[in-house]
Amino acid sequence: MTGIAPAAARRGNLDSSLATLDTPQAAIDLGLVRRHIERMQQYCDAHGIALRPHVKTHKLVPIARLQLAAGAAGIACQKLGEAEVMVGAGMGDVLVTFPLVGEHKLRRLGALAARARISTVVDSEAGARGISRAAADAGVQVPLLVECDTGYARTGVQTPSEAAELAALVERLPGVAFEGLMTYPTSQRTGEFFAATRSELQRRGLEPAVVSTGGTEGAFRTHEVAEVNELRVGTYVYGDRAFVAKGSVTVQECALTVLSTVVSRPTHGRAIIDAGSKALSSDPANGLDDGEYGEVLDLPGSRLRRLSEEHGHLDVSACDREPDIGEVVRVLPNHACGTANMHDDVAVHHEGRLEAVWKLDARGAMR
Amino acid sequence: MTGIAPAAARRGNLDSSLATLDTPQAAIDLGLVRRHIERMQQYCDAHGIALRPHVKTHKLVPIARLQLAAGAAGIACQKLGEAEVMVGAGMGDVLVTFPLVGEHKLRRLGALAARARISTVVDSEAGARGISRAAADAGVQVPLLVECDTGYARTGVQTPSEAAELAALVERLPGVAFEGLMTYPTSQRTGEFFAATRSELQRRGLEPAVVSTGGTEGAFRTHEVAEVNELRVGTYVYGDRAFVAKGSVTVQECALTVLSTVVSRPTHGRAIIDAGSKALSSDPANGLDDGEYGEVLDLPGSRLRRLSEEHGHLDVSACDREPDIGEVVRVLPNHACGTANMHDDVAVHHEGRLEAVWKLDARGAMR
Repeated sequence: MTGIAPAAARRGNLDSSLATLDTPQAAIDLGLVRRHIERMQQYCDAHGIALRPHVKTHKLVPIARLQLAAGAAGIACQKLGEAEVMVGAGMGDVLVTFPLVGEHKLRRLGALAARARISTVVDSEAGARGISRAAADAGVQVPLLVECDTGYARTGVQTPSEAAELAALVERLPGVAFEGLMTYPTSQRTGEFFAATRSELQRRGLEPAVVSTGGTEGAFRTHEVAEVNELRVGTYVYGDRAFVAKGSVTVQECALTVLSTVVSRPTHGRAIIDAGSKALSSDPANGLDDGEYGEVLDLPGSRLRRLSEEHGHLDVSACDREPDIGEVVRVLPNHACGTANMHDDVAVHHEGRLEAVWKLDARGAMR
Repeated sequence: MTGIAPAAARRGNLDSSLATLDTPQAAIDLGLVRRHIERMQQYCDAHGIALRPHVKTHKLVPIARLQLAAGAAGIACQKLGEAEVMVGAGMGDVLVTFPLVGEHKLRRLGALAARARISTVVDSEAGARGISRAAADAGVQVPLLVECDTGYARTGVQTPSEAAELAALVERLPGVAFEGLMTYPTSQRTGEFFAATRSELQRRGLEPAVVSTGGTEGAFRTHEVAEVNELRVGTYVYGDRAFVAKGSVTVQECALTVLSTVVSRPTHGRAIIDAGSKALSSDPANGLDDGEYGEVLDLPGSRLRRLSEEHGHLDVSACDREPDIGEVVRVLPNHACGTANMHDDVAVHHEGRLEAVWKLDARGAMR
C-alpha cells in the first residue's frame, strides 16, 4: 500500500469516455507524460547533461517526438528493430544500447546507418570487429561506445584497462570510431570506473566525447558523477509500482495504467479481473518483490495476488466496498516497460478524458 | 536439471537452416507437435471423451487445423479476440472459456455467434443476463456452460446447488440455452462436484449435454472422472519446463524453444543471451518455481538465473564448455503459453530443418 488517494478521488478520474473502452486496455495520461518529460529535460539542461530518452518503455513515435521537442539530444533503443521503426519515423540520432551480434543484425545495422546517425555499444573484440566489417561493407561510419560493467553484472567490460584497450582497438578498425563510454545503471562505482578509464584512455591519446549512463532510479543525482555527460532514461515517462516503492514517483504521478473489467465475483473477498499475465506481464515490482502483480487504484486495500494468463485474481476482502461484475478498474502495473510491451495500442487520455488511441509503433520489435 | 540429453546430441538438432535465423526467434518442431496432437486424440477417442484443444497456447490457425483434422470436436479460446480470429479462418465450433462481460464483448459475441457455433461460460446471474440480452438482440442462440470452481479458487460457482440454480436461470432466459458444466482444472473434488450438480439438475429436469474439464497436467487421467465427456487442453501441443518438472513430458518431447544468440561474455562463468523477459516472459515454471527462467538446451549445466527485458543472464560456470559470442542456443521456456504470446511469429521446423515461418494469427488478441 503505497500512498493511494482516497477511493472517491481516484474513481473520479475514470471519466466515462475511458470507462466505456473495451478491456483490457493500456492507457496513458498524456498530461503526466508531458510533465515527466519536462521535468527530466529541465534537470538535464540545468546540469549540462545531454538527455537521450529510452524508447523501449513506450515504443511510441509520438512520445519520442515529445521527448525530442523538449530538448532531448537523440533517443536510445534497446533493439535494432526499435531503431528501425524510429528511423522510419524520421528520428535522426539513435543509440542502440545492446550488443549487435550475428550476420542479420550487422547487415541491418549497415543499412540503417546509411539512413541516420546510428551509434551503438560494444564490450568485446568480437563485437567490435563484427560491426567494423559490416560498417565498412556498407560504406558507413558507426560511432561506438564501450560498454562498462560498473556493478550491475550484466554486459560490459570489467575493468578500466579493458575499456581503454577496446577503445583503442575501435579507433584502429575501419567503419567505426570510438565515441565514448556507456554503463547501466549508475552505481556507486560508476564515477571511479569512468575516471580511471579516462586516465587510461588519455595515456593512449583518446578522449571520450560521450560518457553515458542510464536508469530512472537515481536519475536526478546523475550530476553527482562528474564524468557523465549523457543520461538515458526510459521508465521516467510513465512511472510504475516499482518506482513508487523506490520513492521516485507517487502513485498519482504514474501515467500508465491498464483498464480492466471485473468479470467474476465467485465469493466474498474474491474478484476476478480480465487482466492477467498476458496484459500486465508477470514482471515483479523490482526491488519490492512482494508477490503482488500490480495495484488496483480504484479498489484501495485490494491485493492482486495471482495472475493466470487472462485472469487477475484480486483479494478484495480488506476493501471498504467490494466491486460489482462489469466495473472497470485501473491497474497500476509493477513494471511499466514489461506491461506496455504486452499491448497493441494505448488509450491516450488527459485526466481521464479520452483523446486518442495510439498503435504501439515498435510493438514486438524484439530483434 | 531435468533429463537433458548430452550436449553433442542436442546441438546436433540445431540444423544450419535454423541456426542462421535472426534471434530471438520462437521455433516449434512440427513433428513433435503432430505427435502430441495424435497422442491426445487417441487417448480421448479410446475413452469416448470429446477433445476441444485450447488455442490460447499456440494462437496459430494451422495448428488448430491440425487439431481438428486429427479429430477434435471443436476448439476452445480464452478470449473473444482469439475466437474472432479462428472463426475468420473458418473454425465452426468455438467455446470461449472466459466470462464475457461488458457492452463491447456482448456486442461482439452476438455478431460472432451469427457466423459460427459459439458457446461460452457463465458463473453469475449478471453474466448470464448480459449474454442473454445480447444474443436475443442479435437474433442468435448461445449455448452456455455453467463454470464450476472445483478447487482452483478462480472463476466459477462455489456449490452444486448454485450451479443448478444458474443452469435453471439460463434455461429460462431468451437467446441462451443450458449446455452443460465446465471447470478448470480437474481436481480431486471435480468428480464429486459434478455428480452432485447432476443430481441437483435432474431434480430441476435438466441434463448437462457437455461436462467439460481442462488442463494438460493429469489430462491422461480424465477418464477417471466419470462425469466428464469433454477435455480442453492447450499446453500439451508444446510442453514446457513446468510440464517437464511435473513429469508430463520429457525435455526431448518439448516442441517450443526460443532461439537466442550469445551476445556478450563479460566474465568467465557469465554469458548474456539476447532473449530476456520480452522474448521469454517472466512466467515462472509453475509448480517448480526454482527462480530460473528457462533451460538452455545447448549448454547443459547452465542456469538462466535472471532476465532483463532484452538480456538473459546465463550462469555457465558449471558447464563443460563456455559458449562463444555469436553462438545460437535453444531456450526451453518455463511456460509455453506465456512465451509463445510474446512473439509475432514462429519458425516451424522438423528436427531442426526449417520449413516455414508462421505469423501468430491471434497475436495480441487479449480482448
